[in-house]
Amino acid sequence: MRLLIQKILTEGKVLEGNILKVDNFLNHMIDVTFAEKMGREFYKRFKGKNVTKILTVEASGIGLSCLTASKFNCPVLFAKKSNTSNLSHDVYSAEVFSFTHNIKTIIRVCKDYLKPSDRVLIIDDFMANGEATRGLIDIVKQAGATLVGVGIAIEKGFQGGGDDLRAKGIDVYSLAIIDKMGTDGIEFRKQ
Amino acid sequence: MRLLIQKILTEGKVLEGNILKVDNFLNHMIDVTFAEKMGREFYKRFKGKNVTKILTVEASGIGLSCLTASKFNCPVLFAKKSNTSNLSHDVYSAEVFSFTHNIKTIIRVCKDYLKPSDRVLIIDDFMANGEATRGLIDIVKQAGATLVGVGIAIEKGFQGGGDDLRAKGIDVYSLAIIDKMGTDGIEFRKQ
Repeated sequence: MRLLIQKILTEGKVLEGNILKVDNFLNHMIDVTFAEKMGREFYKRFKGKNVTKILTVEASGIGLSCLTASKFNCPVLFAKKSNTSNLSHDVYSAEVFSFTHNIKTIIRVCKDYLKPSDRVLIIDDFMANGEATRGLIDIVKQAGATLVGVGIAIEKGFQGGGDDLRAKGIDVYSLAIIDKMGTDGIEFRKQ
Repeated sequence: MRLLIQKILTEGKVLEGNILKVDNFLNHMIDVTFAEKMGREFYKRFKGKNVTKILTVEASGIGLSCLTASKFNCPVLFAKKSNTSNLSHDVYSAEVFSFTHNIKTIIRVCKDYLKPSDRVLIIDDFMANGEATRGLIDIVKQAGATLVGVGIAIEKGFQGGGDDLRAKGIDVYSLAIIDKMGTDGIEFRKQ
């Protein structure tokens, strides 16, 4: 998505430790008008797939997911995070390891809200190692639902998570894929 | 908002400990079509107020805020929660005590994204004691910005947070106010 690449180049900041700071429009302040445009891109790509539910994980995926779901006219389900594995029986859960924060998180979804008849599109703002997405895919499988695809705003391609999932046959569609990143500049994958 | 009251009565569940479970449409799964209708109600009420930014707190306020902001054509800023008071200097922060979970949380907003010229509408899914809203109002004050008002989906009126703020002259607009709640039923305030 050319507009997103331009926005990353003009407004994003590369910080040490492979961090791309885009919290002025994506994950702290949300440029809602722009996020709606991203939602339309996801809709164009997945509209023929009979999506019944958008699945994401709190917190920063929720806004983009809701603005995307308004095109699909379907609900959003967001997995909740907790650091305890003390869970009730009525949830699907998965372990997610965050390389950024070096902690293990449990994400969970109430069983009532994900059914075998669901056709699920996973949406998130970022993908790096793909740990969060893998956790969400695991939850979709536990529910016996169908995974339609994965829509990501910014994929850090050099961290490999997206390509790993593609190699497994999962339809991962990222609006911008960064192949190289440093204080001297950002290289995007040609798509 | 009659539709919201109907939805609470038909889909909500009252649990012990003054808990209203509406996670099938508001704070785990989000009925996006319905949340857009709530967003339109907030827009009708606050549209003449030149809102430049919607402020909320992660996680469950984000969806409703984004769908409301798309009417106002303004960005959403969500305060981040953490349990540490170890904060950098470039944030506004406030302490929020959660009576539900009996923990103190620090909420923070990057100073770059809230300016004295901002006219802020606070949006959240729930208000009980009003602690989260008070924290957000404190952050608006720290930034020297103008608080336009507060829009809440469901206010637990019997917990007093909303009326305390109204008594201080703050324009709190809740789409449904619960005055009494028990396993035998829910009483809504006439508005």
